[in-house]
Amino acid sequence: MIPQRSPRVATLGLDFGTASVRAVVVDCSSGAELGEGEAQYRHGRDGVVGDPTDPQVARQDASDYLEGLRSAVRDVLAAAESESGFDRRDIVGIGVGTTGSTPIPVDSDGQPVVFDPRFRSDPTAMAWLWKDHTAHAEAEEITAAVAEARLPYLGPCGHTYSSEWYWAKLARYLRSSSPDLVAATAGWVELADFVPGYLVDHLDPATVARGICPAGHKAMYDDEWDGLPSGAFLDSVQPGMSAFRYTTKAQASDTSIGGLSADIAAELGLRPGVAVAAGAFDAHVGAVGAGVEEGVLVKIVGTSTCDTTVVAGDRPLIEGLCGSVPDSIIPGMVGLEAGQSAVGDIFAWFASSLSPGPSGTSDRLEDLTSAAAELKPGASGLLGLDWHNGNRSVLVDPLLSGLMVGMSLATTAPEFYRALIESTAFGAQRIIEQFESSGVPIDRLVLSGGIVKKNPLLVQIYADVTDRPIEVAGTSQTCAVGAAILASVAAGVHVTTEDAQAVMVPPPERRVSPDPAAVAVYGELYRLYRRLHDAFGANGVGALSDVMKRLLAIRRSVTG
Amino acid sequence: MIPQRSPRVATLGLDFGTASVRAVVVDCSSGAELGEGEAQYRHGRDGVVGDPTDPQVARQDASDYLEGLRSAVRDVLAAAESESGFDRRDIVGIGVGTTGSTPIPVDSDGQPVVFDPRFRSDPTAMAWLWKDHTAHAEAEEITAAVAEARLPYLGPCGHTYSSEWYWAKLARYLRSSSPDLVAATAGWVELADFVPGYLVDHLDPATVARGICPAGHKAMYDDEWDGLPSGAFLDSVQPGMSAFRYTTKAQASDTSIGGLSADIAAELGLRPGVAVAAGAFDAHVGAVGAGVEEGVLVKIVGTSTCDTTVVAGDRPLIEGLCGSVPDSIIPGMVGLEAGQSAVGDIFAWFASSLSPGPSGTSDRLEDLTSAAAELKPGASGLLGLDWHNGNRSVLVDPLLSGLMVGMSLATTAPEFYRALIESTAFGAQRIIEQFESSGVPIDRLVLSGGIVKKNPLLVQIYADVTDRPIEVAGTSQTCAVGAAILASVAAGVHVTTEDAQAVMVPPPERRVSPDPAAVAVYGELYRLYRRLHDAFGANGVGALSDVMKRLLAIRRSVTG
Repeated sequence: MIPQRSPRVATLGLDFGTASVRAVVVDCSSGAELGEGEAQYRHGRDGVVGDPTDPQVARQDASDYLEGLRSAVRDVLAAAESESGFDRRDIVGIGVGTTGSTPIPVDSDGQPVVFDPRFRSDPTAMAWLWKDHTAHAEAEEITAAVAEARLPYLGPCGHTYSSEWYWAKLARYLRSSSPDLVAATAGWVELADFVPGYLVDHLDPATVARGICPAGHKAMYDDEWDGLPSGAFLDSVQPGMSAFRYTTKAQASDTSIGGLSADIAAELGLRPGVAVAAGAFDAHVGAVGAGVEEGVLVKIVGTSTCDTTVVAGDRPLIEGLCGSVPDSIIPGMVGLEAGQSAVGDIFAWFASSLSPGPSGTSDRLEDLTSAAAELKPGASGLLGLDWHNGNRSVLVDPLLSGLMVGMSLATTAPEFYRALIESTAFGAQRIIEQFESSGVPIDRLVLSGGIVKKNPLLVQIYADVTDRPIEVAGTSQTCAVGAAILASVAAGVHVTTEDAQAVMVPPPERRVSPDPAAVAVYGELYRLYRRLHDAFGANGVGALSDVMKRLLAIRRSVTG
Repeated sequence: MIPQRSPRVATLGLDFGTASVRAVVVDCSSGAELGEGEAQYRHGRDGVVGDPTDPQVARQDASDYLEGLRSAVRDVLAAAESESGFDRRDIVGIGVGTTGSTPIPVDSDGQPVVFDPRFRSDPTAMAWLWKDHTAHAEAEEITAAVAEARLPYLGPCGHTYSSEWYWAKLARYLRSSSPDLVAATAGWVELADFVPGYLVDHLDPATVARGICPAGHKAMYDDEWDGLPSGAFLDSVQPGMSAFRYTTKAQASDTSIGGLSADIAAELGLRPGVAVAAGAFDAHVGAVGAGVEEGVLVKIVGTSTCDTTVVAGDRPLIEGLCGSVPDSIIPGMVGLEAGQSAVGDIFAWFASSLSPGPSGTSDRLEDLTSAAAELKPGASGLLGLDWHNGNRSVLVDPLLSGLMVGMSLATTAPEFYRALIESTAFGAQRIIEQFESSGVPIDRLVLSGGIVKKNPLLVQIYADVTDRPIEVAGTSQTCAVGAAILASVAAGVHVTTEDAQAVMVPPPERRVSPDPAAVAVYGELYRLYRRLHDAFGANGVGALSDVMKRLLAIRRSVTG
């Protein structure tokens, strides 16, 4: 049905990020990006609805997703059509990557409950954004319950459940919502599943298509135990949670879950029925767009990072990672995920909160970056722990916090800023160590994300700290391009994801090699970082591992 | 000779601080301050000549002292004479307090060698300001040499010699100076001795009057071993150092060392021959001016703090303090000194280097203080170590550095600033603990210094952290007033320092009580502070006590 040899065959890739949705149209035979579109979310601060009394709250209004979808797609189609020879009816498939775990409470029709006028302004009824950390107690309970019952559920996730994940958030939701809100809630649907479901007009939470990526990495879904954890287990964590246990089989992201609905197609001028791929997380589709393969760690560096790689053969189970899931990145291989809870967020925080200079955060960041680039590794005497938003890998502990040591009366803002960049690089190195000590070699890094493009200093520091060559991804839309690549397989244009990658992954923008002198200095600093890491973190066994927790407990007790 | 019952009998007190010299005229019968004068030093940055490549260098040009002396005295006399009934010839004595240990290399006439045109712009030839930390290796050598030879020299100084002190700086001077400069140097005279010697025109370094305060607290002078350490010991640390061993008997600061020289008297319109008291350190004379007595800890809070108290009876020897010296504060009692290497310096550093806001540091400090006052104890989740300029008491380690833990993406500049204030209060509490565990009870604190006047938040935090009532000294010129009080004894107006204090110490500006709720929270935070303190400091036995040192070593190796 789909013309394999049309003059132009293209796919649409959508990337629902933390602050905006981005869209690209990619030529399936050349990989050329024919256009880009972007729409900022309107609610909250940069799209995130917080709570001034609790910094762990991070929610989103689902209307932003739907408005953003329409706006970004209209823009990208208009942009692509300004290219010669492209017609929006050349689009043969749509792929979707989103943040996650970002579950949305929905009613029995699959509509977000926040659209119900009764709950329209209730943050609890909104989407629970990946970086919402309110469910830390529930995450700990799940970890403990799995361990106590000697269940296999957390083997692929490094034996620790995270407050950022699906079931912890659902348990917290059920505990903190009003009875009316709970009664109105029939399902808990990942944003990564909601968008494809919306596009094919199939949102019923019992049967909406679920992607293997969100299910396997965040919801303890695994074919080994027939899908999700048992209802009995779920109810043991939170009575009533078993009602949210879906039984559909999760699907790989190169699979078509159905055709674009006639209504939406008409509205956007697309052909009805074009293939919509199963959804996946942004970083996972981003890994595809960045050319992930064995031995390559893709780091999507944004407000946080998501680190992914793939491995053929047996599934490795690695302590402290966010998942080891067959088919989750490149179908046919095991997808491995780790991450750092804050990277760009740390730099933006520092520039806006602790840095003199011009009034705009981005101007300050630019000034700080230029000044920091003049400094030598180790010359500031500073060393930091990059845990300002907790630690995702390998400590899996949202209650850790940031630290800086080595300050003198001569310490400057650019030195502090550079030490923050370095601390995130040390955090990256800690993850690489964990992969390699578990038999997953990492030979090369591909970095992607806006920060990477704007900040060559960061890329060099990462190369020097990890002592590995780095490639900067050849597109600023790695996630959306990855979604478009997967859509090309779902649409049948390419047979496998690797085939599609070979044609559609853009060549790296640049390659950076480690500087041996800097590698030596950072090697020394990393050994010190590791000691601080283990003293303050180390899963409760470090000499100072209670300090950050106690500070948080004191904070809670005095702020009531 | 001196009219004991003139209509007005007054003394002149001089306070040579880090950035300026201040002068007061005090009525000896009422304690009324009849006038103030101040002159900023002209050289360097705020009077301090640094080295951009080495933050440990802090020097001063002795010409600033002499110009500042004349300017401040002219101003204070003019101000006092604008009061009805005062005539500058009513002044019967002059007292001097200065920073220290701030030794000045002098030639055989006692003239600063920096006045020699050959060395006019050489920072090495300048005065080595108290906060110069370049002599840390030499201080360690002295500590080790005393311990190895089982000599008693460091018993009164807590068994650790400091890089801020006299002999360490002299050893460093002899090692780092050109042969010409060393050849031109005949003596090493504390600023506290140089100024009185200058006023009585007796500067010969072999016989210039030496105060017991600088000699006893910084130069290991003690009657028990016949004054200074032996020449053999000094030469064992640094060959040639014994040539700088003076043999004069050090004098208490209520002693007249001679009369004002006719030349200077004529120049300033004072009566020639009025008593000049032996010099002492600013914080020690400040303690007198603040009403120090047994059970009272006086903290002179400036760029750093100096903490002093007195105790009758046997001399206690306390680990990690800066000295336990008979007669050094109130003659007849044992003077005890401790200190914090940076307090106001930390706040100024933060406001100027790490804080958004208005462009002037003092405006920023004002804004930060207002905002920080709105926060509750413990609410920021932050905890710091106040070692940005090393730790004077009780760790005596200039190579320690600042630390902040607990940062989140929501941490604000006022929170960081408040945590810095709190960290200095915890440092103060650590010193109080050390006094009390050595049998010197501290029942009450008197705080003095410009910061204390301007920052009621700091005073409340200190009361809450130490759980002790605090008085704010009744004058902003505590040190100069203390020098004037001691001068009144040297001039024979009063018989003892206690007698003079009873009449001349101004009543406290205000009294502050601890808030029980805050005391409880700070008690918890202090226990955590103490753990960080011991892990990172603890004289080399803490679990992380090498981390700050290694960072500094890396810094040195890369900035070479």
